Amino acid sequence: MNVLITGAGGFIGSRLAQALLKRGTLADSTGQQKEISKITLLDITFPAEKDRRLDYVLGDLSDTALLAATMGTDTTSVFHLASIVSGGAEADFELGMKVNLDGTRALMDACRQQSKPPRFVFSSSVAAFGSGFPPVVDDDTKASPLTSYGAQKVCCEYLTNDYSRRGFLDGRVVRLPTISVRPGKPNLAKSSYASGIIREPLNGVVSRCPVSASTGIWILSPSRVVDALIHAHDLPASAWGVNRVLNLPGTTATAGEMVDALRKIAGDKVADLVQWAPDADIQAFIDSLPVRFKTTRALEMGFVADLNVETMIRDHIEEQGITI
Amino acid sequence: MNVLITGAGGFIGSRLAQALLKRGTLADSTGQQKEISKITLLDITFPAEKDRRLDYVLGDLSDTALLAATMGTDTTSVFHLASIVSGGAEADFELGMKVNLDGTRALMDACRQQSKPPRFVFSSSVAAFGSGFPPVVDDDTKASPLTSYGAQKVCCEYLTNDYSRRGFLDGRVVRLPTISVRPGKPNLAKSSYASGIIREPLNGVVSRCPVSASTGIWILSPSRVVDALIHAHDLPASAWGVNRVLNLPGTTATAGEMVDALRKIAGDKVADLVQWAPDADIQAFIDSLPVRFKTTRALEMGFVADLNVETMIRDHIEEQGITI
Repeated sequence: MNVLITGAGGFIGSRLAQALLKRGTLADSTGQQKEISKITLLDITFPAEKDRRLDYVLGDLSDTALLAATMGTDTTSVFHLASIVSGGAEADFELGMKVNLDGTRALMDACRQQSKPPRFVFSSSVAAFGSGFPPVVDDDTKASPLTSYGAQKVCCEYLTNDYSRRGFLDGRVVRLPTISVRPGKPNLAKSSYASGIIREPLNGVVSRCPVSASTGIWILSPSRVVDALIHAHDLPASAWGVNRVLNLPGTTATAGEMVDALRKIAGDKVADLVQWAPDADIQAFIDSLPVRFKTTRALEMGFVADLNVETMIRDHIEEQGITI
Repeated sequence: MNVLITGAGGFIGSRLAQALLKRGTLADSTGQQKEISKITLLDITFPAEKDRRLDYVLGDLSDTALLAATMGTDTTSVFHLASIVSGGAEADFELGMKVNLDGTRALMDACRQQSKPPRFVFSSSVAAFGSGFPPVVDDDTKASPLTSYGAQKVCCEYLTNDYSRRGFLDGRVVRLPTISVRPGKPNLAKSSYASGIIREPLNGVVSRCPVSASTGIWILSPSRVVDALIHAHDLPASAWGVNRVLNLPGTTATAGEMVDALRKIAGDKVADLVQWAPDADIQAFIDSLPVRFKTTRALEMGFVADLNVETMIRDHIEEQGITI
């Protein structure tokens, strides 16, 4: 199995690469677990620390010559995680279209050059839902993005379905919930608080929560995201059928519930580092996202969410080697 | 008002141009009816007979230099009807992507070069629905195309929404039912019978119906399609809101009902020219299409269907000057 991971310089891409190294195998087109011979990481930037078991390729998704050289004709599996994120694609429309739509299409066309249609695992997003969705989003809810990022993701979902139907590739698209607890530094994402209010207090640092305690969000832990990407890959094509797009299971948690769980696990001193600092802009943005999902199809296909917010926090503590 | 019609060499495009000439005005961005100063027709081929009141431009949608030269910066209204049809886009994937996706995007980008965001009326299709739709498709039914044509149309719907949200253009997308009665010759479309079983007998010619008498289809007459395109243009942006995509009202008719109506209007001798000649391929394709729609939103917005199959046939007879 020859694996390509795009956006591999990012947090989930790195975690996925490590999980694949540890695992050592992936399902081939017949469903048999086969040894992974090569993992190629593609991104425009990588952390300084490299793993010598991995191939690092610096470059842009829309560089078709580079894609052809990188993928050759023997790539069996593509995990396509690269994207210009929501805020970035909103701020720079052309860049978002170039990477998120044209780049994805270039990658899909490169898949057509492989000796066998590769399995193509693509991370989409709950940003597919932006307006007029019901209180509980389910497998039949139509996409209604209100960001360019969301629109670009949805276009690529439909193209993945069509490329799969035509046998150009074997697509599997998972719409990711907001990831929590994301390690590292706070970032500029409007949903950054969903990790920050857990991560920063555990590091002894104050975290300002920009939304009210009763504000819900749909979340999934990094480990479950990586599991889901690999599970999406390994499922037989027949399990997907004609619709290659799936809302992943997740957990609905309010900011208040997250802080309560943190308090239970790490005590008052840690939990009290969360300060409630309402921000109308962020509140409005988070309020526009779907909070509750009924993911019947994904559960039937064997995808799993975290047990609850407490296990998400405990997993983070264990993974990061935090002592409390 | 300076109007561009793409795919204007086709049947609907020609009818639309004539309707606009007769009408003489279209709503400007403030909603006022303003005189149409210029109508430009773009297509890769035109009928030999030209109307000297119209500008004809021969060329391809994906020719950005031609688009720029044709549209200048003062185009106020675009009716985008050009496409590689379902069968064509299925037979030649690259051509479908080039015209239906890239060509539409090139046209949308040319709209961004206009001094004001033009109203952009785009004809999509019930080919947006291909799998897993409910017995009655409504405004919330998610797109699920099973053809490359349908996938390309749906991508352009989402892009039209995003371009509209960003103020690049003022988009209005109508999903057209199957058109009946389409004048002219039978064509290779699998739904060709929906016009053929009316048109051919009225011309004294035998028509073979490839589907069973009980097979339903969702249809709209050419006149109502042209009305709908103009109505879509003239509605204020506020009537559309963030969702610029609409299933048009139509009529559900079985082949048997169509022949019965023909019999009532034109007599047994004409109706008996329909021969029932089952074709399993065509039957399967037509069975895969949605037959019943609940078009609440479109009706509220003032779009109208034909009264019934009889009026559709009578309109065709009158428009074509047929004596019975």
